[in-house]
Amino acid sequence: MTQPMTLAEKILAAKVGRDVVRPGELLEVPVDWVLAHEITTPVAIRMLEERDMDRVWNPERVVAVPDHTVPAKDIASARLYQRLKAWVQKHGIKHWYDVGRGGIAHTVFEASGLPAPGEVVVSGDSHTPNAGALGMFATGVGSTDLAGAIYAGTFWLKVPETLRIDLVGELQPGVYAKDIILEVIRRIGDDGARSMAMEWGGPGMATLSMEERFTLTNMAVEAGGMTGIVAADDVTQAYLREKGTPEERWRIFEPDPDAHYAERIEVNLSELEPVVAFPNRPGNGHPISDARGIRIDQAYLGSCTNGRISDLRIAANILRGRRIADHVRMIVVPATQAIYKQALREGLIEVFVEAGATVSYPSCGACLGMHTGVLGPDDVCISSTNRNFTGRMGHPSAQIYLASPAVVAASAVAGEITDPREFLTETATQLSA
Amino acid sequence: MTQPMTLAEKILAAKVGRDVVRPGELLEVPVDWVLAHEITTPVAIRMLEERDMDRVWNPERVVAVPDHTVPAKDIASARLYQRLKAWVQKHGIKHWYDVGRGGIAHTVFEASGLPAPGEVVVSGDSHTPNAGALGMFATGVGSTDLAGAIYAGTFWLKVPETLRIDLVGELQPGVYAKDIILEVIRRIGDDGARSMAMEWGGPGMATLSMEERFTLTNMAVEAGGMTGIVAADDVTQAYLREKGTPEERWRIFEPDPDAHYAERIEVNLSELEPVVAFPNRPGNGHPISDARGIRIDQAYLGSCTNGRISDLRIAANILRGRRIADHVRMIVVPATQAIYKQALREGLIEVFVEAGATVSYPSCGACLGMHTGVLGPDDVCISSTNRNFTGRMGHPSAQIYLASPAVVAASAVAGEITDPREFLTETATQLSA
Repeated sequence: MTQPMTLAEKILAAKVGRDVVRPGELLEVPVDWVLAHEITTPVAIRMLEERDMDRVWNPERVVAVPDHTVPAKDIASARLYQRLKAWVQKHGIKHWYDVGRGGIAHTVFEASGLPAPGEVVVSGDSHTPNAGALGMFATGVGSTDLAGAIYAGTFWLKVPETLRIDLVGELQPGVYAKDIILEVIRRIGDDGARSMAMEWGGPGMATLSMEERFTLTNMAVEAGGMTGIVAADDVTQAYLREKGTPEERWRIFEPDPDAHYAERIEVNLSELEPVVAFPNRPGNGHPISDARGIRIDQAYLGSCTNGRISDLRIAANILRGRRIADHVRMIVVPATQAIYKQALREGLIEVFVEAGATVSYPSCGACLGMHTGVLGPDDVCISSTNRNFTGRMGHPSAQIYLASPAVVAASAVAGEITDPREFLTETATQLSA
Repeated sequence: MTQPMTLAEKILAAKVGRDVVRPGELLEVPVDWVLAHEITTPVAIRMLEERDMDRVWNPERVVAVPDHTVPAKDIASARLYQRLKAWVQKHGIKHWYDVGRGGIAHTVFEASGLPAPGEVVVSGDSHTPNAGALGMFATGVGSTDLAGAIYAGTFWLKVPETLRIDLVGELQPGVYAKDIILEVIRRIGDDGARSMAMEWGGPGMATLSMEERFTLTNMAVEAGGMTGIVAADDVTQAYLREKGTPEERWRIFEPDPDAHYAERIEVNLSELEPVVAFPNRPGNGHPISDARGIRIDQAYLGSCTNGRISDLRIAANILRGRRIADHVRMIVVPATQAIYKQALREGLIEVFVEAGATVSYPSCGACLGMHTGVLGPDDVCISSTNRNFTGRMGHPSAQIYLASPAVVAASAVAGEITDPREFLTETATQLSA
C-alpha cells in the first residue's frame, strides 16, 4: 500500500519508477522536455563544448525558442541568437521556433501541443513553472543543470515540500487570475513558497480557463517556489485536445486527499478585489484603491505571465473607442506570433493602435529591461509582467507596479493607476467573463 | 532682369529676399521647420543650455519625433527619449509625436500636412532631403547648426551647385523608385553629388507618385548631396490637398529652363532593371542578375527610404499566400503608425505574419544597427534601407545588399537574392503599377 502523496510527488515518483518519494530526497529525474532560449542555453552549450560533451540526449525533445532579444537589439544579442541557431542546426533539434515563427518560449511551449500531463520540463529560465498548469512538473534550473539535462536527459532534484492553495468561489467582473497570484504572494510573502511546489486546486479551479491557470503557475518563482502545478481536469483535457497533444502521452495524476502539505491556504475568489503589487516586490500587494491616482508614464501589456489572447481581449475591451492619456506610452507585446495572428483576426491590434498604443512583435520585451520599453530614471510603469524588483525593467529609480491586463489598460486611458471596474461596460463584462 | 536659377537657388533666393543667389555664396537662411529626433537634438539642447541660450525661436515650427530607439532598448535610449520629451514640454513644442503616435521622423513629417513647397526644413539627420520631394529645400545639419536653428530660426548655408537628373520613359513592372536612385548613385558614384542639390525632373517624373519621389530625394546624401529636390507639380499638389496643407502657404517654384547645372544626367526608366547595391557602398550597384543566388539570413523591409504603404503593398503582393524560406528571418517595419494602421486595414500585416515575417512597431529599427534586427557576424541581409556601409546594420563582417521592397520580399521567399519579376502575377503587376 502506497503512502499518500501530493501531485508533484506523484509525478516525480512515476518518473523515477518508485512507489513513493518524500520531500528532501535527492532524485535524478528523467526529463521529457528541455526548453531552450538564447540567453541561458548558450552558456550551457559552452560548458558542454569545453568538456567535449557537445551532444543532445534527444533532439526531438528539445524545444528551442529565441525570445529575450529577438530580433537582435545589438551585436551581442545577434551573436546569442546565432549561437542558439547554429546549435539547433548542428544537432538537428526538432522543435525550432525562429524569429517570426515563435514568441516567448514559455507561451510557445504551453500552446505547442508538445507538453502532456505527467511530464517533466526544465529550462534555464525562472518562469518555467508556467507549464505546470498542464499537470506536469516544470521548473527552472541553472545553466549547469541545463547542460546536464541536454547531455543526459536527466537532472538532479531535491523533492520539494508542497504548499497547497485551495480556490473557492468565483472571480467577479474586473478581477482576474493575476489578482489571485498577487494576492497569494501578498499573503505568503516573497519567500512564502521557498523551494516548494505550489499546488493549486479547490472547487474554484474549475471556473478558471487554461490561460488563467498559466498565469497562476507562471509566477511560482515570485513566491520563491520551485514550481506551480494544477492537476489536469476537464478544462486541461479540452485544451490538450484542441492543441492536438496525443492522448496516449497523457499521464493524469491527482494529489491524494490525505497528502501531507507543508502549508495550506484558501483564497475566496468571490471576495477578491484587483490587486496592485507596489515597488519593489511582487509580494508588496495592495488593494487597487491604495494605488488610485498614481500617475504613470508607461503602461506595459505583455510577458509570459499576461501576454495571451485572453489578456489582449480584456485590455482591448477597455481600450476600444478610447484613447490612452496624452502623457502615457502604452506598449502591447503579444506573447507569441500565434497570439499576434489571432489578435489581428479579432481586430484587437487595430483597437490598440487606434488607442495610441505601440504594438510590438512577440518577445520578452521590457519585462526584464532588455528592449521595447526599457524604463528611464524615475519612470513610473504599470505592468502586466511578473517582477518589479529594483531595476528589473530598466533604471533602478523607475517604479514598477504589477497588475492585471485590465488595470494596465484602464490606467493607460486614465493616465494614472485606475480600477478597471470603472471601465466595464455590459459588453466588456460579458466578454471577459 | 533676373538671371536664370535652378530650383534650389530659387527657393533660397526667395527665403533670403534676394532676386538671385549663386552657388558658393554663404547665406543665413530662415527656416520654416526644424525636425527633431531623440539622438541629435539632445546634443543641440545641451549646447544651448550650456550657453544660457535654451530657447526655441518658434515652438509652432518644431516637429519633434522620437524614432531611433523607441520604445527604449536600454537605459541610455530611455534617457534620450526623456530628454527630448522634457524639452518639448518645457518649450511647448506644438508638433510632438510621442511613442505610439509617430514613427520615423522624416516619414511622419512628409505626411503631416505641415511642410509646403518653397519652405525650408533642417534636421540633425542626414536623410532630411526626403522632404525635398515636396518642392522644398530640406537638408541635414550638424548639432551646432541645429542648435542655431532652434535658437534663431536660421542657419548658415553655402548655396550648392545643382546636379540635374532628367527622367524619361516609364518604370516597367518589378522596377521601382529605389532602382532609380541606386542606378543614379551607381552612375555618378558615392560622392557624385558632393555638396550639391540633386534636382529631379524630366517627363518621366509625372509617372512617379509622391511616395516614389520621397525615395529619390531621401537618398541624396548617399551620393554626397546636400539635398534632393523635385518641383511641385500636379502630383505634389494632389498630395498636399489630401494631407490638408493650407494652400496659402504653398510657394511653387520651377527651375528656369536655362538654369546653370554643374552636371546633367538622364535616366531612361523604361530600360531600367532592378538594381542591387552590393556591400559596402550604396554606389556599388549591380544588375540583379549579378546578385542571383546570394544566400541571405535576413530580409529587412522598412526605413524612411522604403517603409511606406506603397512599399508594404508591393512586398505583400509577393508574399501573399507564400512562406518565407525556413532559414530566413524577415523583419517588416512600417515607417509610421499611420502606415501601420493603413496596412492593418488592408490586411497587409496579416499577409506578413502569415508568411512568417516579424512585424515591428514603427522606428528606424535595424537600418542603422540600433535595434529590431541588428546583424551578427557574417550575416547576409537584403534590405530596403539606404546605406550598406561597413557595420551600418550591426557587425562589420555582416554583408548588406540594398534593393527595392520587391527584391526584399522575393528574396525572403526564395532564401537568396531573387529578381522580383519572377514572382509577379498578373494581379501583382497591376497593383504595383
